[in-house]
This record gives sequence, structure tokens and C-alpha cells, in this order.
Amino acid sequence: MKFTLETQDTQTKARTGVIETAHGSIQTPIFMPVGTAGTVKAVHQRELRDDIKAQIILGNTYHLFLRPGLDIIKQAGGLHRFNGWEGPILTDSGGYQVYSLAGTGRKIKEHGVEFRSHIDGSLHTFTPEGVVDIQRQIGADIIMAFDECTPYPCEYEYARASMEMTHRWLKRCCERFDETEGYYGYPQTLFPIVQGSVYKDLRVKSAETIAAAGREGNAIGGLSVGEPAEIMYELAEVVCDILPRDKPRYLMGVGTPADILEGIAVGVDMFDCVMPTRNARNGMLFTTEGIINIRNLKWQDDFSPIDKNLGGYASSFYTKAYLRHLIRSNEMLGAQIASIHNLTFYLWLVGEARRKIEQGDFGTWKNVTIKKVMQRL
Amino acid sequence: MKFTLETQDTQTKARTGVIETAHGSIQTPIFMPVGTAGTVKAVHQRELRDDIKAQIILGNTYHLFLRPGLDIIKQAGGLHRFNGWEGPILTDSGGYQVYSLAGTGRKIKEHGVEFRSHIDGSLHTFTPEGVVDIQRQIGADIIMAFDECTPYPCEYEYARASMEMTHRWLKRCCERFDETEGYYGYPQTLFPIVQGSVYKDLRVKSAETIAAAGREGNAIGGLSVGEPAEIMYELAEVVCDILPRDKPRYLMGVGTPADILEGIAVGVDMFDCVMPTRNARNGMLFTTEGIINIRNLKWQDDFSPIDKNLGGYASSFYTKAYLRHLIRSNEMLGAQIASIHNLTFYLWLVGEARRKIEQGDFGTWKNVTIKKVMQRL
Ligand SMILES: [Zn+2]
Ligand SMILES: [Zn+2]
Repeated sequence: MKFTLETQDTQTKARTGVIETAHGSIQTPIFMPVGTAGTVKAVHQRELRDDIKAQIILGNTYHLFLRPGLDIIKQAGGLHRFNGWEGPILTDSGGYQVYSLAGTGRKIKEHGVEFRSHIDGSLHTFTPEGVVDIQRQIGADIIMAFDECTPYPCEYEYARASMEMTHRWLKRCCERFDETEGYYGYPQTLFPIVQGSVYKDLRVKSAETIAAAGREGNAIGGLSVGEPAEIMYELAEVVCDILPRDKPRYLMGVGTPADILEGIAVGVDMFDCVMPTRNARNGMLFTTEGIINIRNLKWQDDFSPIDKNLGGYASSFYTKAYLRHLIRSNEMLGAQIASIHNLTFYLWLVGEARRKIEQGDFGTWKNVTIKKVMQRL
Repeated sequence: MKFTLETQDTQTKARTGVIETAHGSIQTPIFMPVGTAGTVKAVHQRELRDDIKAQIILGNTYHLFLRPGLDIIKQAGGLHRFNGWEGPILTDSGGYQVYSLAGTGRKIKEHGVEFRSHIDGSLHTFTPEGVVDIQRQIGADIIMAFDECTPYPCEYEYARASMEMTHRWLKRCCERFDETEGYYGYPQTLFPIVQGSVYKDLRVKSAETIAAAGREGNAIGGLSVGEPAEIMYELAEVVCDILPRDKPRYLMGVGTPADILEGIAVGVDMFDCVMPTRNARNGMLFTTEGIINIRNLKWQDDFSPIDKNLGGYASSFYTKAYLRHLIRSNEMLGAQIASIHNLTFYLWLVGEARRKIEQGDFGTWKNVTIKKVMQRL
């Protein structure tokens, strides 16, 4: 992987760059649609590429490991071949999913995490070494280190101890990563993850440790888990200030359009979130004019396109009234249209941010845009 | 509407033709995907046109009447404008849905049928005149007469009395149709429906009555409701022999690939069925090689395209192993891919039949093809 920093904004800490991977390049700042089980829900692969203009998608190690399982993915020749998405793929470490299994017999130990499959109850253990091997075999272009993602709120002592274990796990991930090679011949890269809950001193310490690991890119985890947005922005800034300038920074699981623009403003390059697709299925649309709950009566006779400013197929071909009818009727096509639309909006948002950074007026544009796109219509 | 009979097969009673409507022409024999609530489930409008190559789709009067309702459809400028499907549309009369509401207070009277909405329990009455008006307002190119579709089995006396009421209702439908005009300016046409359950003498009588009505096309209803396939083929042939040669014949709600080819062989021109889309959602695929239950273990590592002989996007881009994974994981994309694929197959099937009739070897091809495509793989 190669990252080239291109433009540094002067009003804010925003920047543009290009990440080059074995499966193509990514223009940052970027939003990465989440493809949990090897599919971005309700979206065809060609729609991702041609309509949404996604440049990289996510896969979830936990889900893919359980189903279809590594044997099938390996026989297919990796996840790219299995699902037909030819662009870059980033996989999470499975840590986040495993922690959310609390109460089902999940045990966090120094060695790793023991858990039961939500599908068939079978017992498995994820270790730092194991999840590197799994992600190697999935064939992700960007592999995430195994970490513990602390909940919010989280006591200081727990957050400190957990962070330290995450750092020890990182060492094991790096060792395993460095002694192995790309499973399918092409190079892969490993991103470590900053933790430390909402405690600034822990975040500083973690960011220093992660920076010192000297990997090709770095991630910020454990945010957007329920803490106030202002705290998230502040901690992301503290961490970005410490992480190396010449490497991409990935803020995991974030977020609303406002969160993404504020994240860009403090120096984040990469984002992912289930919000655009999950909310789409419930009828919540992000548009260039503001947020729409398409179930509301006011849209029943609005025969204008969903968002004429975006230009993509779903957003310009279908009307609000038709989409409202589909969502209210629980028709799958409703979820399909809304998912394509919301992802098209998210990719438009980061693309616009990139252009504004290049033009030098990102800061002003950001404040106007947040106000506009976050208002309820 | 204009129908031009093109080729008459010599081995069988199959024929080819062209139906011209205000929204384009249809090459027969044709299969019409079912778009119940103004959407062919899980399929985008451009996929219908470009991938599946649908030439006409169905809408269900009962569903559209209840949701979004006529007011919205009229404000949109008709169903074509509402859902963006620019090709021909045929609507059923709502009769079939209303009869399947048995046990919810539904009452069949000479005047019409009283029923309660499955959505909110509200009380409505469909009359022959009313459903003509509704379909005028939906804007269907082909409007179906209001009939009673008898269940199977059905006592002779009930079938006879029901058929006679259907004939009286047809008279009312025709009168209403002839004294009204296309709601949106373009011409619409009305198809009457032959009933008579499995009784040959009733079918003969009904076919004669329907033929005498002198409409531009004719339909055969009340088949494919549980009776043996051989009886259906035989009755369809009896009816087709009576219905005028120079008008299209539509066998409603049919059927399997075998049913369609046998129907074509006795002179049917148009078919519709929920089978390709409904079965797709359950993982049953119709292919040029035979029927696949994609959930079966044998497909888990089959990385070949779903059906390389069809050429369409979904069938050639995605593999059987990937589709199996999606269907087993209840991922929407699984239903989407399988629905596009099955409909692509159905349109391929009638297109091939058409070519074979033109070439003069439909009869031989039909027998070989039924054997092949109906075998379980
Ligand atoms: Zn999120
Ligand atoms: Zn059917």
C-alpha cells in the first residue's frame, strides 16, 4: 500500500490524498460502504461501482469466518473473487462483533476471545494471530489489528487495562503479519487501532504507541459508541495530531454526515458506517437538501426525484412518492433504492469535501453543508 | 391495441405475433413478470428492461387500489409515471385477490364483491363497473374483466352458476368500458376471461360466450389452481380452439416452464406467474440445464456462473456458490440476484419458443427442452 498526501487545507486540518492498493487506488477523504457478509445489503456489485462510485468496501471478519467460512473463500480465490467486487476491500478484525456478543458465554482473555456463533452456537476463539491469518485468507487489501473496543461509558481503570491489552495484542498482530505473506500473491497491509475510551491521556498514550508501531496506516477505534459528538470530535483531533501525517487515518464506525465532515476537518481520511444502509431500510434518507423520513405523509404526492442534485440512477430516476409507497409496503425495492441513494449521497459528500479542500474553502463549506444536510425536511 | 399474427407452427398449434400498445409492442409468445404493488419484487425498473428484457409487466388492481391508492396514482399521471416503467402494463381485475380473502367477511353478490382490506380492515366493494374505472385510472394498457375465479376442486353446479355470473359481469364490464375513454388520453383495451372450472362443457360454453364478446384479446382464467397439469393443458387447448385465431390469448397465472411451453403448443400467447420471483426468494432457480435448489450443499463450492447460457448480468456475473451464501444468509442481494435470474430465464424461454416456431421446429424442441429444464440438478 502507498499513501500520497496531496493537499493540506489551511482553514482546517483536512487533507486529500491517494491510497494505492493491489486492487486500485482510493481518493481520500473516503467513505467505505459496509459489506458485512460479503454483500453491501440490497446493492448489486455493479451499482456499487457505477452508481454509488464506491472506491473501497468493508467486509466483516466475524461474519465471513462463520459463513460462508474460510474454506469456501479460499477455494474461490479470496473475497474479491467470491463476491465479484474488484476494488479494494478492508476487513475489520472481528473484535467489534465478538464484543457485542456479551452475555452469550463470550470470554475475553489475554490469549484471545472465546465466543459462540450466533448462527449455530459453535465455540470459536479469535486471537491476534488468528485474525491476521483469517484476514490474510479473506484476501483483504487492508487488514485490521485485533483490539478490544470498550463500551461507553467505561470506567477509567477498565479503559486503561483494555488499552494496554490492545497494545500487547497489536505486537502479536504485527509479528504474525510480518512473518506471513499475502495469501493470494498480492500485498496486504495492517492498520493498528488507537483505543482509550473517552480519556484524553489514554488516547494520547495509545496514539503514541500506535504511531510508534510504524505501520502504513492507522485507525481510531472505540469512538461513536454513544459518547457526545463533541467529545468524539475532540478526541479524534487529539489522536490525529499525534498520528503520522504521511499515513492515512481511519475513524472506525463513523458516522452521520456531520460526523464525517467534522472528522475530515480534524485530519481523518477514511470512514465506514452502517448508518446509510441501515437507515435506508427504515426509510431515512440523507439528501443534499436535508434528512427525509420518507414514511411521512408529506412525501405521498411528491413526484420529484429523490435527490436531483446527486445524478445517480436511483436518486434521479425514482420519485419520493414512489419510494414512500415501496417502503410503506415493505417492498424490497424500497430498501434497494434507499440504500443506493444514501450511499450515493455519502460518496458525494466525501467527494465534495475533497474538491473543497483542493479549492481551499473546505472550512466554510463544511459549516454551511452540515447545517443544510443535517436539517430535517 | 393491435395484434398481428405472424407465424403459425405446423407441428403444433403454437404461433407468433406482435401486440402493439400505446406503450410499445410485445412479441408473442410472451411471459409477463408480476409487479403486484407497482414493483416486480426485488428488481429495478432498468433491470427489467435491460437485463430481463421484459416487454410487459403486470400490476395488481387490488394491491394498487389499497396502496398507494387511486388518488396518488392519478396525481402521478398513471402507474407508468408512478413507477417509471415505460413499457406496456396489464392489470388484473382484483378478482383473484379478493376471492383469496375468503373467511375475512368477503361477500360475493350479483352486484359485486364486498371485502375488507388486508392492510387496515377497511370495507370496500369491487363491482364490474368499478374495476373497469379503477383500471382506467391506473392507466393499464390491457384491462381485465371482473370475473369469479373458482377454486379447485369445485362442484359442477357452483362452477356453472359462477361462470354464468362471470358472463353477466362481462356484459357490465364491456358496457362500462365502451362508454368511457382512456383516462390519460392513450387507448386501453379490455380482455374478457373464460371460466368453467375443469368441466369441458362449461369451458366450451364460456369460450363461445367470451369469443362472441368480440374484444381485442381474450384470457383463460381459473386454471393452474391445483388441478393436474394434463387437465390444464387439455382445457387450454379446448378453449384456444374456440377463441378467435386473430386475437391474443392469455393463460392467467401460468406457470412452470413446462406449463408455458405446453400452453404455447396449444395456442396461448401470453402468460404470467409469480413462480419465478417467489421461488427465487426461496432459492429455487430455473436454468437452461435444469432446476437448482441453491441451498443444497452441492453448490457451496461451485464457482461457475448461475447460468452461462443466458448472458444477462445476474446470471453470468454471480456464481452459484456466492448466491448460495447470500440466500442462506438471508441477504437481500440473494433474492435480488435470483429474481433477476429466474425472470431472465422465463423471458429467454418464451424468446426461444418464438424463434423455434419461426424456424418450424418448435414441437421437437419443446419436448427436449421440457425434459431438460424441468430436471432437478
Ligand atoms: Zn456507525
Ligand atoms: Zn402462477
